[in-house]
Order: sequence, then C-alpha cells, then structure tokens
Amino acid sequence: MSQDTITLPAAADFHLHLRQGEMMRMVTPMVSKGGVSLAYIMPNLSPPISNTDQALAYKKELEQLAPNVTFYMTLYLSPQLTIEEIRKASKAGIAGVKSYPRGVTTNSDGGIENYEVYYPIFKAMEEEGMVLNLHGEIPSDAESDICVMNAEERFLPQLEKLHNAFPKLKIVLEHATSKAAVELVKRLGDTVGCTITVHHLQLIVDDWAGQPHHFCKPVAKYPHDRSALQEVVSSGKLTVFYARFILVKPSNLSLRTGHPRFFLGTDSAPHPRGTKETSCAHAGVFTTPLVLPYLAQIFDSLGCLDKLENFACHFGKAFYGLSQKPEFENATVTLARTSSELVVPNEFHISQDGQPSSLGTVVPFWAGKPLGWQIVKDF
Amino acid sequence: MSQDTITLPAAADFHLHLRQGEMMRMVTPMVSKGGVSLAYIMPNLSPPISNTDQALAYKKELEQLAPNVTFYMTLYLSPQLTIEEIRKASKAGIAGVKSYPRGVTTNSDGGIENYEVYYPIFKAMEEEGMVLNLHGEIPSDAESDICVMNAEERFLPQLEKLHNAFPKLKIVLEHATSKAAVELVKRLGDTVGCTITVHHLQLIVDDWAGQPHHFCKPVAKYPHDRSALQEVVSSGKLTVFYARFILVKPSNLSLRTGHPRFFLGTDSAPHPRGTKETSCAHAGVFTTPLVLPYLAQIFDSLGCLDKLENFACHFGKAFYGLSQKPEFENATVTLARTSSELVVPNEFHISQDGQPSSLGTVVPFWAGKPLGWQIVKDF
Repeated sequence: MSQDTITLPAAADFHLHLRQGEMMRMVTPMVSKGGVSLAYIMPNLSPPISNTDQALAYKKELEQLAPNVTFYMTLYLSPQLTIEEIRKASKAGIAGVKSYPRGVTTNSDGGIENYEVYYPIFKAMEEEGMVLNLHGEIPSDAESDICVMNAEERFLPQLEKLHNAFPKLKIVLEHATSKAAVELVKRLGDTVGCTITVHHLQLIVDDWAGQPHHFCKPVAKYPHDRSALQEVVSSGKLTVFYARFILVKPSNLSLRTGHPRFFLGTDSAPHPRGTKETSCAHAGVFTTPLVLPYLAQIFDSLGCLDKLENFACHFGKAFYGLSQKPEFENATVTLARTSSELVVPNEFHISQDGQPSSLGTVVPFWAGKPLGWQIVKDF
Repeated sequence: MSQDTITLPAAADFHLHLRQGEMMRMVTPMVSKGGVSLAYIMPNLSPPISNTDQALAYKKELEQLAPNVTFYMTLYLSPQLTIEEIRKASKAGIAGVKSYPRGVTTNSDGGIENYEVYYPIFKAMEEEGMVLNLHGEIPSDAESDICVMNAEERFLPQLEKLHNAFPKLKIVLEHATSKAAVELVKRLGDTVGCTITVHHLQLIVDDWAGQPHHFCKPVAKYPHDRSALQEVVSSGKLTVFYARFILVKPSNLSLRTGHPRFFLGTDSAPHPRGTKETSCAHAGVFTTPLVLPYLAQIFDSLGCLDKLENFACHFGKAFYGLSQKPEFENATVTLARTSSELVVPNEFHISQDGQPSSLGTVVPFWAGKPLGWQIVKDF
C-alpha cells in the first residue's frame, strides 16, 4: 500500500550555496520553503569567506533573510588560513573548512592541490572538532587521462591519505557521484562522511549532455554510479554507535535504514539562466526551493520513502554533532502526494527591492516536469 | 624547421550533413570554402532519404548550390528498404546505406536496433559493392549501464558480428570516438573502415561539459580515447595493398603515414544557435567552412602535418573506390600559416534570398579562437 503523506522533522542541508547580493536575497528565503531548517553554508564567495569575521558577517546577513533557518558557516581553505584563525573560528561556532581543488568549481581559483602544506591546519581542526569538507576532484589533466568523468575517483587516494594522517579529524567527501567514492567512504572509519545531492540521485551523464541546467561539478556519471548512490541511501544497517544519536521512531528502525555516514548536502547552486543557456555554461543545479518534494519523489520512486527521514534529517546532524535553534528542534514538515498536474516552476525571478533584476531568472531542477510530492505543512 | 605552407589535393569529406531548405542553401556553398571537393552526404533529412529518386533529387539540389563539389549519396536504412531498391540505387551511383540506432541522433527515430532483419539487404549491398555506414552506438539503457560514454564501445560487438557475416561488405564505422573502436577497426579486415571527425581529434568530455557547441553524438570521450584517434591518423605503416591505390608523392612515403582505413568524415552538422544555447541542445558540431584549416592546425600541433594529405584526401577515396568529377581530379588547395590575429568567425548568418533568416546564425567549431592556418589558394 503506497503512503500518501509523510511527516518528518525539518531537514538539514549540509552543503548549500546561498551566493551574495540579489541572488542571495532571492535564494535564502527559499531554504525553508524547501523544508530545510538547518543549512551548512559554502564559503566560495567573491572574495571567499576566509576568516571568522567575514563568516559571521555573512551569517548575520543570511539570518536576517531567513530567521527560521539555523546556519552553520565554513571557511575557505587557502594558504592564508592560520592555526590562530582556526582556534578563533571554532570558538565562534564556525563548523568547518572547505577545500576546493584549484580551478574545479565556482570561485575556486585560489583552491588547493597539495594537502600536506595544510597538515598543521588540519591538526588544529582535529583538536577543535572542526570538519574538513572536501570537493573531491583532481583538476583535469589530459597527460594523466584525468577528465571530469574520473576526476573524483582519481581524488580518492587523497581522501584515504588524509584520513590515515588524521584519523580523528571529521572529513566529509562532498557531493559524491561515483560508486568508487561510496565504497571508499563506507570502508573508511566513522570520522569520514559523505554528502549526496538531490540531483546526483537522479541524473547520469546523458542528462547533462547538452542540458546545461543538469550540468554541475562533479558531473553526474554512469548509471552504475547513480545506482551506488541510490543503494547507499536506501539500504544498510544502522549501527548501534549511530543509533544512540538519532531520534528515530520505532517504526523507522529496520534493517534497511540508509547508511549513517551518507546524508543530504544539496550543493544547490543557483546561476542566472543567461549564464546557463549559453556557449559556456556555469556549473550548478538549483534545488533549494523544493528540496524535500524532490527527495520524496526520488525516494518514493526507489521504494524507500521510509529512508528519507534518516538521510535528510538525522544522519548529517548526528555526524556533525550539530543541532538547530531550540525553537526549531521539533519543527516538522508534512508532504503529500500530488496530482500529476503539479509541475516544477519553469523559473524563479531574481528581484531587487521587488523589481525584476538585471540578473533575470534562475531555472530550477526538473523545471516544467511533474512533481509527485508537495509540502502541505511547513514549519 | 616548421613548414609555412602546404599544398594538397582538394579534400574528401566522407560524412557530411547538408540539411534542407535555408540551412542547406547556406551550408552547401561552404563545402568548397573548407577545401573539400568530394562530399559523402548523410540521408537523415525529414523525411529521411530512403529511395533512389529522393537521393537523386537531393543530389541535384546540392549540385546546383555547389557545382565544384562531387556529391555521393546515401540511403537511410529502414524496414522499407528493399533489395530491388538497393539494385536500383547502385545502378544510379548511390554509394552507401546509413544505419542509425533508434533515437540516437538527429531524425533517427526510424533507426534500427536488430541488424539480422537486414541481412538480405546487406547481402545485396555486398554484391553491388555498396558501403554500409554505421552510426555505432547502442541506445542508452540504465539497466544495462549503457550511457553516452560507453554507447560506442558497447556497439562494437555488432560491428564485428556484421563483418564476420559479410566479410566482403565494405563497412564504415562512422565518427569513431574511442580507443576500443580504433583497435577493433584496425583488427578487422580490409573491408572495414572508419571515419574520424575534425572535432573528435581535438575534444574530450570536458570540452562539451556545459559547452553546447562542442556537444555531438557520439560525444567526445576520455583523453586516452582522443590520443588513440590522434595516433591512428599520425602513425602506422602504409601497406602495399593500399599503396597501389594512392597517388602519393615519393616524399610522402614514410613509415608513418596514418592508417589507410582511417580517414576524414567531418560529421559537420549545423544547428541554429538558438537550438544549441538552450536548455536541451541539439547534437552536432559545425566544421564545414574551415575543414582543412582546422585539420592543418590540429595535425601541425600533433607534429604530423605530412600525414594530413593521406587522411583528408586519399585514404577515403581509396577505401570507397570513388573519384571526383574529372575536371576536379587535379584540383589543389594551398594553406598557409597565419598570424595569431586570425580567428574563427563567431557565427555565420543563415540567409534567405540575401535577407537574414528566422533561423538566425550557426556557431562554428572553435568560434572566436585563433586559427593558425588559412586557405590561400582554393580550387
């Protein structure tokens, strides 16, 4: 018997781009519309968020735009980052440090290639309990046969090396796209987690071939890679270790509960339509306004709607040890199955002071396609 | 010492889309501008060219637009094609039959999946000396892990099976993109050839990620695949068998001459800019106006400019046993190295009766980028 409604705690998105300026003002209020009440914010602004003061100023802007969302901030890993700044950031509640390989993603020109120079920083982060967030791709290099299709898999030895060097440092491999990544993260210890996006649960390489709104970094890969992502969120045994941290209702306790170190991080990354439908598209898929409806549809189609709550609401918070503002701890969202006439909006207008902005519109994931679930009660 | 000019026979393009209507009228006169005097024309019009009369009518249109080009026509393989039509086509000088897998490329919805139903047709083609042109891709199928990245490799057993069933039938694997395809064609007998496009000698998967003007089917693949294509056109031993057919000057006879069964077929496929820079781009790269300048630049950068002539001018004609109109048999083209200021035009306007057309413009390969070679004497 298929389930027609589902009520779950407001979700936690452990990888989110909220941008700056007009785009930030449009996107940030949409976080809660998508059913998300805890958002872990990426630092790749221009200039990047590279110190505590910048992070806190940015957080303040976001909180004003979305007072019902609990924001956790990150710093951008660069040679300018000092051990003292890590201590200061930790005391200020900044939760992690994000590493981008040079040139791979938006505003990552100052990214890094050789992690050993950062070992003193990682040591300090380990001591402080801060999380290292890795964009796990090696820059393309034809000489070494590295391209967007294997850039993640070629990165994985770096992850293993880092984990071996800092076994107590919490490391999150962001937006995993490959079977190899899933297998490695499973094999590594309890301090290594992994975010999975909405769109990578749905797309393969064919879907971004000529389709710029499905183009992101890392790119979606082979069908067997997508299967590995789908399987890890829909199956697996809940270990006693994690069960202690997770508030699951008895009905949710089963042998197939997802994997506690694989959790939601949407990597939602809005770009104006004009920078997507052009000769050289920006990378990023925009899912923020409909995170939980998308996920309900995907999990439903996989026959594992009962696994959605752990993936979207519990596992990430348990891994990070983070919680929401007290008044939202018990916030819930109810989704209901919809008629087939409900479709994802074709675009969202970027406005400034209520007027249309020169930035135009942003096209969401699955624009114009039917969506089988909608939020009928938010928080 | 680098060579600053090169004179070679007018080239032969053994895979070309010239479209219909306004687009045809724009593109067809560009064939000779690109240095090409023999063009082998694809039948995927709407409706497809499926019989002799259609092919001859289309040929006549093309000849009026480009009297200095020798056109060879093909039929579209479909269940409607009869043995009688094959005999008739052969007598009318139609050179080949093109097979598209269902749904893989432009206007291929009527394409095929199971070749055995066509065995009587192939037998007749073998007897008539007609060539079978294969778009070598299996339709994507997530259940079988088939996607655009491995669709060609997964097709290759079909090619081998066909060759074994019809060892005397000339078969051309069109627009090869993978190392596996190059290796298989090399391994098969002298009746199996392979076209290689301009753009697949240059692009990898990264180049069409978010870049619709580099998106085509089959898609460009890994760096090691591109290397295999580059190697097969730049190295290899000319066999005595083929040397008999090829008019090479003694200076061109060396141990590294390319491979006689790998030759130029541009698959140049113009689409209006509006159908490329959009949410779901059409597949195809447009190279017709600058075929020989592109190739000179690529072969020059590979250090094998002396291999260009065999690849672009001789091997294809020798494989097919085709020649140009007598008055163009000795036509030559001279290219010269250019200054760095010369760039590929940003677009070509599609005009109708001298007026701008509603179809807009077509963006050529490498638009706006410097081109190191230009044609200084055409035919």
